[in-house]
Amino acid sequence: MAPHRIGILTGGGDAPGLNAVIRAVVKYAVGKLHWSVIGIEDSFNGLLEAPHRIRDMSPSNCQGLLQRGGTVLGTTNRGDPFAYPDGKGGIEDRSEGLAKAIREQGLEGLIVIGGDGTQAIGLRLMDTHGIPVVGVPKTIDNDLSATDLTFGFTSAVEVATDALDRLNTTAESHDRVMLLEVMGRDAGWIALWAGVAGGADCIAIPEIPYDPDRFTAKIKERRMKGRHFTLIVVAEGARPMEGEKWPSEVQHGKGRIQTEGAASTLARLLTERMDVETRTTVLGHLQRGGSPVAFDRVLATQFGVRAVELILAGRWGEMVCLKGHEVDSVPIRDAVAAYRTVSPDHSLIATARAVGIEFGA
Amino acid sequence: MAPHRIGILTGGGDAPGLNAVIRAVVKYAVGKLHWSVIGIEDSFNGLLEAPHRIRDMSPSNCQGLLQRGGTVLGTTNRGDPFAYPDGKGGIEDRSEGLAKAIREQGLEGLIVIGGDGTQAIGLRLMDTHGIPVVGVPKTIDNDLSATDLTFGFTSAVEVATDALDRLNTTAESHDRVMLLEVMGRDAGWIALWAGVAGGADCIAIPEIPYDPDRFTAKIKERRMKGRHFTLIVVAEGARPMEGEKWPSEVQHGKGRIQTEGAASTLARLLTERMDVETRTTVLGHLQRGGSPVAFDRVLATQFGVRAVELILAGRWGEMVCLKGHEVDSVPIRDAVAAYRTVSPDHSLIATARAVGIEFGA
Amino acid sequence: MAPHRIGILTGGGDAPGLNAVIRAVVKYAVGKLHWSVIGIEDSFNGLLEAPHRIRDMSPSNCQGLLQRGGTVLGTTNRGDPFAYPDGKGGIEDRSEGLAKAIREQGLEGLIVIGGDGTQAIGLRLMDTHGIPVVGVPKTIDNDLSATDLTFGFTSAVEVATDALDRLNTTAESHDRVMLLEVMGRDAGWIALWAGVAGGADCIAIPEIPYDPDRFTAKIKERRMKGRHFTLIVVAEGARPMEGEKWPSEVQHGKGRIQTEGAASTLARLLTERMDVETRTTVLGHLQRGGSPVAFDRVLATQFGVRAVELILAGRWGEMVCLKGHEVDSVPIRDAVAAYRTVSPDHSLIATARAVGIEFGA
Amino acid sequence: MAPHRIGILTGGGDAPGLNAVIRAVVKYAVGKLHWSVIGIEDSFNGLLEAPHRIRDMSPSNCQGLLQRGGTVLGTTNRGDPFAYPDGKGGIEDRSEGLAKAIREQGLEGLIVIGGDGTQAIGLRLMDTHGIPVVGVPKTIDNDLSATDLTFGFTSAVEVATDALDRLNTTAESHDRVMLLEVMGRDAGWIALWAGVAGGADCIAIPEIPYDPDRFTAKIKERRMKGRHFTLIVVAEGARPMEGEKWPSEVQHGKGRIQTEGAASTLARLLTERMDVETRTTVLGHLQRGGSPVAFDRVLATQFGVRAVELILAGRWGEMVCLKGHEVDSVPIRDAVAAYRTVSPDHSLIATARAVGIEFGA
Repeated sequence: MAPHRIGILTGGGDAPGLNAVIRAVVKYAVGKLHWSVIGIEDSFNGLLEAPHRIRDMSPSNCQGLLQRGGTVLGTTNRGDPFAYPDGKGGIEDRSEGLAKAIREQGLEGLIVIGGDGTQAIGLRLMDTHGIPVVGVPKTIDNDLSATDLTFGFTSAVEVATDALDRLNTTAESHDRVMLLEVMGRDAGWIALWAGVAGGADCIAIPEIPYDPDRFTAKIKERRMKGRHFTLIVVAEGARPMEGEKWPSEVQHGKGRIQTEGAASTLARLLTERMDVETRTTVLGHLQRGGSPVAFDRVLATQFGVRAVELILAGRWGEMVCLKGHEVDSVPIRDAVAAYRTVSPDHSLIATARAVGIEFGA
Repeated sequence: MAPHRIGILTGGGDAPGLNAVIRAVVKYAVGKLHWSVIGIEDSFNGLLEAPHRIRDMSPSNCQGLLQRGGTVLGTTNRGDPFAYPDGKGGIEDRSEGLAKAIREQGLEGLIVIGGDGTQAIGLRLMDTHGIPVVGVPKTIDNDLSATDLTFGFTSAVEVATDALDRLNTTAESHDRVMLLEVMGRDAGWIALWAGVAGGADCIAIPEIPYDPDRFTAKIKERRMKGRHFTLIVVAEGARPMEGEKWPSEVQHGKGRIQTEGAASTLARLLTERMDVETRTTVLGHLQRGGSPVAFDRVLATQFGVRAVELILAGRWGEMVCLKGHEVDSVPIRDAVAAYRTVSPDHSLIATARAVGIEFGA
Repeated sequence: MAPHRIGILTGGGDAPGLNAVIRAVVKYAVGKLHWSVIGIEDSFNGLLEAPHRIRDMSPSNCQGLLQRGGTVLGTTNRGDPFAYPDGKGGIEDRSEGLAKAIREQGLEGLIVIGGDGTQAIGLRLMDTHGIPVVGVPKTIDNDLSATDLTFGFTSAVEVATDALDRLNTTAESHDRVMLLEVMGRDAGWIALWAGVAGGADCIAIPEIPYDPDRFTAKIKERRMKGRHFTLIVVAEGARPMEGEKWPSEVQHGKGRIQTEGAASTLARLLTERMDVETRTTVLGHLQRGGSPVAFDRVLATQFGVRAVELILAGRWGEMVCLKGHEVDSVPIRDAVAAYRTVSPDHSLIATARAVGIEFGA
Repeated sequence: MAPHRIGILTGGGDAPGLNAVIRAVVKYAVGKLHWSVIGIEDSFNGLLEAPHRIRDMSPSNCQGLLQRGGTVLGTTNRGDPFAYPDGKGGIEDRSEGLAKAIREQGLEGLIVIGGDGTQAIGLRLMDTHGIPVVGVPKTIDNDLSATDLTFGFTSAVEVATDALDRLNTTAESHDRVMLLEVMGRDAGWIALWAGVAGGADCIAIPEIPYDPDRFTAKIKERRMKGRHFTLIVVAEGARPMEGEKWPSEVQHGKGRIQTEGAASTLARLLTERMDVETRTTVLGHLQRGGSPVAFDRVLATQFGVRAVELILAGRWGEMVCLKGHEVDSVPIRDAVAAYRTVSPDHSLIATARAVGIEFGA
């Protein structure tokens, strides 16, 4: 039997550990099983636009990938082949051409590493054009219900926690409210974990619209105890109860820039209510970059190996996941668009409240 | 009803997160529930030897504890009150005096943070003298079967992985075998996790006695592929198949010093078999010190809060644990001395082998 | 002869290493020379407002200070005793009362750790009221001409460089311009050093007003070479040539909040000129917090010891400084308000240009 | 005029920043000046043994080099072309062949990055065979008198200081002496800097043979003050006054392994004298690996750019150096074999003694 020949691609935003998944797939599939693995650049686009944008992957060109942030294959949010920019301002379905390119390359199937948007495209390719796919979930916000945890999340929490540690030592010296804005448009997991780990006094998450007066009450309570600084973690999707303006991006000139973010909004609401000095730090992409922590490297390696095992077992259409502490798999169909946000009665919220953290509601 | 008054102590070796447990207990029990919490120094000894070695704990003296390694209460491996040095070279049972001191201090019970030795003493105090205890497990090696994970382990793995990253970049420049000795006398969890996370070529763990020839074969295989360095992680309890000398400590003069460790043993066995330059690094206590990673801080905080909840619920005699991703509890009796080592067919071993890691058997 | 009795205080913004200076003064003056050292809280205010806000310093309460960010003595920017808020919206000269408090405390003199504002107050206290002072310079921006380097700067550069490393790995995966705003209202030293150390493509500093078109040209040049991301470091005081709006803080409600910063300004100017996706990170106080790097700890220790030596030698009115690699001292009078900004023909600018960094002019 | 064509190589042990020098040379010489730069692998050996072991360097293959430890060109300590192993157990002079290979490659000269051994070979090539060379000094121990500082040293000090911080937090919890062995066979700079930065209680360096009794006195003095742990930094070349056995490597089987190191020796001497528990950590190559700190990246970049400038100015035979805070150059002839060790009356020794550090003499 001829050895397998498969493609691998990464889609959507960055998460520490993408390269570690790629490396594990290549080390196992090429290094042990002697398959061919073809790396496709910029998500599905590498096959669509430019035939030269694919490359043979071998263990030797995966050296150093375990430690390295980002993805050597590149990624993009733009390229849905089912609704592709036609260059004239419209869109067109180019999935037929993509399927053709996949067959011409002799690829038996694809390992699709990406968030639910990318997985949905993979699934549609399988349903519509019969291209076999196996999925590896990527969501730095940890908001996919199909997997207990994904790589990248723990690294992002570590970066945010380290930032809180730094703000903590400098905040102690002054009478000040320090706000740290972390990732999380729809789910507050990073804010919650980092807030507990970094000793925040208040945490604002999307799932719990906040009453600014509860935060000012916390600041005052702390002052009365002689604690003249307050540390607040704000998820980028956090918003006040009363429905005030919520962070967004606006078109500006030929590009997009950010307007007032979630932390700035809260800073404004606090200063409108009391005499307080605020300082805001927005971590932004610092949370997506850098070397993954050990935990994420192990998880990413397990995910990569499992993806190959799924192909070995002929289980196309499934996506790798973590159940408890074991790697498992689920049908991609069940996994896509099934989100998990922070329930207000989640046990970690209760733990956080027990150690005195205020959520604004 | 009068508020509760409890004692808290830490026993055995260090683990990053001990202070975070103490802080969580105090922030919840004192800050929220208005109990009294008495910190006892140097494990049970603070009550035995010196009445002045206990202190009132309050949230304000827990500032900065979340981030801080070690334990502010101190710890010791020496002081089993049931077999206490009598100062004349013998031992005596001083548990009666200890129980008396606990009652005189008006303590309704103790939160005992420690490994299985410390938990066994707590349990015996409860059984023999009716002192109510609640346990919080501490084992940096992650070898307690009653809990899926304990604080400190992830931090230790991170330190070891960071060391491997450093050795990796310098090893690449030379033709060399780099050996890194990590903790793990009986269980190879740290070596296994760090080895996978740090891209080791070989891992030696206590559970899999190794054949040195398999490691030399790996080194030669790498050389043939143009890879002139090899990275080996060695758990301190790893030993060769044929039963050669195994790392130990010897009495020397008035103290104890280490003889050849597990990594040095393996280095010797390799150099006896082939022409190879080896370099050995022994991480030692670097793995126990320093600020805990975010994950361990969260886990330690959850454990501390749960210990207080157990007392609230009158569930004395139980020990906090982690089951899956949820904090839970088990009878201390079931938890003590039930170890979990690395099964040679554990899924992470299989993953490691899939990406080409050699275990020596 | 009675042993010396001196006061020590810290003024102005935070800089990593403040605690290390305090520790060195106490370890030397108290631990070795058996002087009394009185810690004064919140700059000069501890003596002005509240007699209880001073404390005896001893080596034992300096444990852990070497590693710790912030300042255990607290600090403030508000309290000029020569122009002190009278609580009725005006100001009054309270320096007489301060001098009296210093004498009542039996302090022979003060060690004043702070920036040029704080040093100017110390000098005026000496000139007007005969209070002997010795200065230790603190300027995280490294903009004081009297000293070649001060503690805190190297730590701030390290934080900014680490942020660039993270942005680098994630930027590589996308087609994007990443902007990192770092400290430096008047001097671009941090931006320059971090930009060179972090491999920035462009650096914007206050001393070189930039032409946005030169940055867009650099972005386009990189795209033509297949490099689809650009990394830009922006000092908070950087501004465009044509004199567009420059970052400021505005009164808002009862407090102050930041408006568009230097990085956002540049992002806006770029997106007005070309089709480009930008992402902005503002490091803010992350640069002031956290444990100082080894270099800053050594420098801070040297400064603290030298301050005591100056007192031993009766050289009041002098300020510690670094000349080349040796610790030295200068008259405070010569040091205050003598700034050093980045000369456009500084050798490091030339080095940066040699490796292809664009400064916008 | 035809553009320049030069070779570049790295020799001797690793130092963080080697890659940053290579990158700066390539970015300047190739990217700006349009020269050809040929990378030679494994020091001079790449030209001697294998013509295919040289490669064209371009800015695009220098991506990521600034942050990366080790050297992409590889290095070796073996290959002195003037005394090269002839494969029959003897040595032969192969410098003629080397010079011939250099001319055949059309190289106008070499940039030699390395320690004094490597520089001496370069100089001899120039003297004997007329091959023009420019030197860039590399000595992680900072023991070359011709330059005030070299890249790698500050990174090594940071690694050692971080280790001390970790040992510090865990030492505090126990009654113990922690010994940390750091690099420095002949010069104690790393031990001195890290010891001051990490708050060591004792420092043992090669330049000050120690009296073990002074260290035991220090341990006892600390115990009397209630400080039950002591932190000792030991340079690998430190040795006791009385001339006891000093750390060495021995031939063992077909390779070499380390015998008792400097820290183990001191641990043994302490335990022979008093009842004390010791724990030893040997950092080894951890100090040579990993990403360079920002300071070293800047210095390495400056050195690389200056090396190219020397060639531009026709100043062959010179070596880049740092004088004060400015990059400069000196004749290689004057630089080789002129060492700088720690003078017992160096100002940093005095500072260390002032804060209570014991040197054992």
